[in-house]
Amino acid sequence: MTDFVSADLYAQVQQFYARQMGLLDDGRPDEWAATFTEDAVFQEASRLNEPLRGRQTIRDSSRARKQRLADEKLDFRHWLGMLSVVPQEDGSLQTRAYALAMRVPRGGALDIFASVVMHDRLVRVDGTWQVRHRDLTHDGSGRDEQG
Amino acid sequence: MTDFVSADLYAQVQQFYARQMGLLDDGRPDEWAATFTEDAVFQEASRLNEPLRGRQTIRDSSRARKQRLADEKLDFRHWLGMLSVVPQEDGSLQTRAYALAMRVPRGGALDIFASVVMHDRLVRVDGTWQVRHRDLTHDGSGRDEQG
Amino acid sequence: MTDFVSADLYAQVQQFYARQMGLLDDGRPDEWAATFTEDAVFQEASRLNEPLRGRQTIRDSSRARKQRLADEKLDFRHWLGMLSVVPQEDGSLQTRAYALAMRVPRGGALDIFASVVMHDRLVRVDGTWQVRHRDLTHDGSGRDEQG
Repeated sequence: MTDFVSADLYAQVQQFYARQMGLLDDGRPDEWAATFTEDAVFQEASRLNEPLRGRQTIRDSSRARKQRLADEKLDFRHWLGMLSVVPQEDGSLQTRAYALAMRVPRGGALDIFASVVMHDRLVRVDGTWQVRHRDLTHDGSGRDEQG
Repeated sequence: MTDFVSADLYAQVQQFYARQMGLLDDGRPDEWAATFTEDAVFQEASRLNEPLRGRQTIRDSSRARKQRLADEKLDFRHWLGMLSVVPQEDGSLQTRAYALAMRVPRGGALDIFASVVMHDRLVRVDGTWQVRHRDLTHDGSGRDEQG
Repeated sequence: MTDFVSADLYAQVQQFYARQMGLLDDGRPDEWAATFTEDAVFQEASRLNEPLRGRQTIRDSSRARKQRLADEKLDFRHWLGMLSVVPQEDGSLQTRAYALAMRVPRGGALDIFASVVMHDRLVRVDGTWQVRHRDLTHDGSGRDEQG
């Protein structure tokens, strides 16, 4: 059973995520939002939050987050790892990755506080990738992962 | 001194490990065991445990582990990173990677509790890779890493 | 906006860093120093340290560090992740990566104590890569990242 994608595709997706998470962590909400499709859905079902629906909602949420982090003087980092990529028949990609969320207050200690499993549907738009659907499952939430 | 493997091979091994560790973390012991050769040896010398010898032993160990984690309501994640791949003359691969082991109890906090150096010998079987030998060295154990 | 580098280049840089950080963590200061150019500059501006200037200074610093870790019986690991690679007009590479620094004392617990953003300038020398400039920014230091 060999279901590995090509090195080209794998490296593209790795770079997409390095860039995307960098935009979030660097506090660039508009560019972050532009990595999602106009009709993207961003859900954290394990948190019982309502999903964010649409790029504009994602941008607004990210702008509010940026302000909050600035107020709290927090550096934030998102790491992704253990990436799997499964091409779909319609040309989109189903990806799965582990994520770690961490923060450091000004002059304070590193706190790696969340381990999350991320499932994305990526679509190719204008020669790059965008997220059409993201589902985050927080470890410890008791929610079984989707298939 | 350029001893890098091709992007194709490197991406294959990255994907192999993402899939393999996902099977362990998702509690799929039979599929996990199938990523090892029939005669695989799995040792954690730094822990003074006897090595696990053979796929069946690895499967039994993993099934018992799954039951234990379910009883304790623990989510478990294994991250690999800093991967090196060195092709051997017989076509097998010697790999080295860092590993982090972490767990989250239901409703509890993330605990990243072990840093491990992993040395694997991978062999190609039926168009994919399998682990023929795995050696784990836990940091802090005082055991010098193998060469 | 597609500014991804080829899988070949991306995999090369990933392997370069896996090897380089392994040399540091394995306590091989001379080989570690050889991964920098003769005139390399290594700065941790967020720490207010003077930059290390030149391969010999980097080697001396790494030898002293090795002795210190041996005295303290510490295992040390450096993880890099979320790697971006941007080729420059002169053939060099500007890279950005996240780094985690962690240590385990003999018989003790894992301590992941620093999250760092690393900016490197890599140059090709004799068929491999070397670091000509490294800048580390520690999260929580209050220093804005460079552009």
